[in-house]
Amino acid sequence: MPVCFVSAGPGAADLITLRGLQRLGEAAVVLHDALTDPLLRAFAPKAEWIDVGKRGFAHAVRQSEINALLVRHAQSAPGLVVRLKGGDASVFGRLEEELQALCAAGIAAEVVPGVTAALAAAAQAQRPLTRRGAGRSVALSTAMTATDTPSPAAQALGRSADTEVFYMAGQQLPALRQRLLAAGWSADTPALVVSRAGCADALCSPHPLSRLQDAALLHRGRPTVVTLGVGASPLSDVSFAPPATLENPSPLLESGALFGPHPLP
Amino acid sequence: MPVCFVSAGPGAADLITLRGLQRLGEAAVVLHDALTDPLLRAFAPKAEWIDVGKRGFAHAVRQSEINALLVRHAQSAPGLVVRLKGGDASVFGRLEEELQALCAAGIAAEVVPGVTAALAAAAQAQRPLTRRGAGRSVALSTAMTATDTPSPAAQALGRSADTEVFYMAGQQLPALRQRLLAAGWSADTPALVVSRAGCADALCSPHPLSRLQDAALLHRGRPTVVTLGVGASPLSDVSFAPPATLENPSPLLESGALFGPHPLP
Repeated sequence: MPVCFVSAGPGAADLITLRGLQRLGEAAVVLHDALTDPLLRAFAPKAEWIDVGKRGFAHAVRQSEINALLVRHAQSAPGLVVRLKGGDASVFGRLEEELQALCAAGIAAEVVPGVTAALAAAAQAQRPLTRRGAGRSVALSTAMTATDTPSPAAQALGRSADTEVFYMAGQQLPALRQRLLAAGWSADTPALVVSRAGCADALCSPHPLSRLQDAALLHRGRPTVVTLGVGASPLSDVSFAPPATLENPSPLLESGALFGPHPLP
Repeated sequence: MPVCFVSAGPGAADLITLRGLQRLGEAAVVLHDALTDPLLRAFAPKAEWIDVGKRGFAHAVRQSEINALLVRHAQSAPGLVVRLKGGDASVFGRLEEELQALCAAGIAAEVVPGVTAALAAAAQAQRPLTRRGAGRSVALSTAMTATDTPSPAAQALGRSADTEVFYMAGQQLPALRQRLLAAGWSADTPALVVSRAGCADALCSPHPLSRLQDAALLHRGRPTVVTLGVGASPLSDVSFAPPATLENPSPLLESGALFGPHPLP
């Protein structure tokens, strides 16, 4: 049977796409990561759910087993096999290795895109990643550097983009701060730390880069992204020609303090 | 009433998130862009739908009108006002200006993230934006340069990221090619052009950078993104240590020819 890679989104079950939901509904088997919301099970109650969860630095040793499991289930399942991945499958999702394993076994695949963590964090904080005139490029990279030699691009820490977003940053905040300062980012560059973006218990905290490590305790043990640069700044700090009525933005958007989710009233 | 910014995704109605769908269902008024799928209307059949569409270089003159419309409807609507934006609202969506207008008027807002075009293109082509060992950073920027002075970062054309994705690239292919070559990208850098990603009539075409202009006719008049670098390469070209079973990837993934959507059989 074919395999459908479904991007589950950043964590909250209702941030999956409608197409992803439909594929789950057709699934006979779902192989899922640790971070996907258990509530998603309600959308495929009759499927066999198999946790192939992997986190952080343990990735490398397990990927070949996941590839093998995926091929085996695709060859034996009585219906569609869904490979459910957190975030968007094409961004830090190890998708290429699983696609290649399927391809080598002659198994067809489909990829359903999803909401990647950087987008969920920006929505949560209501701080858009791009800003007219000042923020016209966004770079996504990972804060993890323990096992591999960084590529030249990763070493440069993306100083060519107006806004940088670092994934898997929760346990890396002091090291990330050091690397960014060493790369020439100024100490007062705005940084925004968001954990569990899109979930009811999401947390956002803004910091100057020099104080990034202050976020470690607040976000400890939670999936966390760090946004840096133009896209991390509160809206009132962004220079563009506003209409006259916008001369006095409200404290909501000017606040530099800790802020939680912004649910609708 | 509050305003909910809903990211509609890249075009196909079923790539909206479940949360976005639910907000549409609650809407009394929907202000939408030109590029959002008309099928989305089925999810808010009783709402008043108002087209505030804007495209390309006409953005600048209309944004203040959209801001004013949004505030006026939020102040008068009998229920939720949804501002439906193509792609993800936080990426090249002019979200900050609309948020500031609402904030200045004391109107609460929520932002629902969505699938941005770069992710849909990668899923469509089954070419992940990140690759283990070789592709650890992704930069998103726009190919449009007509009206504004590029920021220093935009001028550098993101040579610090392993994979670059250029939005709004359809009418800019020859100019984009020239700028990228001038910035030092080699002529044989893999480029992937994807239009209407996620839709039934999606098209993908791979080119070496030196032949990027060849894509102009095929994708003419369609929303188009260009992916460049590691994330544009077919999977078999990516160097990483594959399991022994992957030594002979199938022609599907090796093909450099034009390829269409990959629906499930």
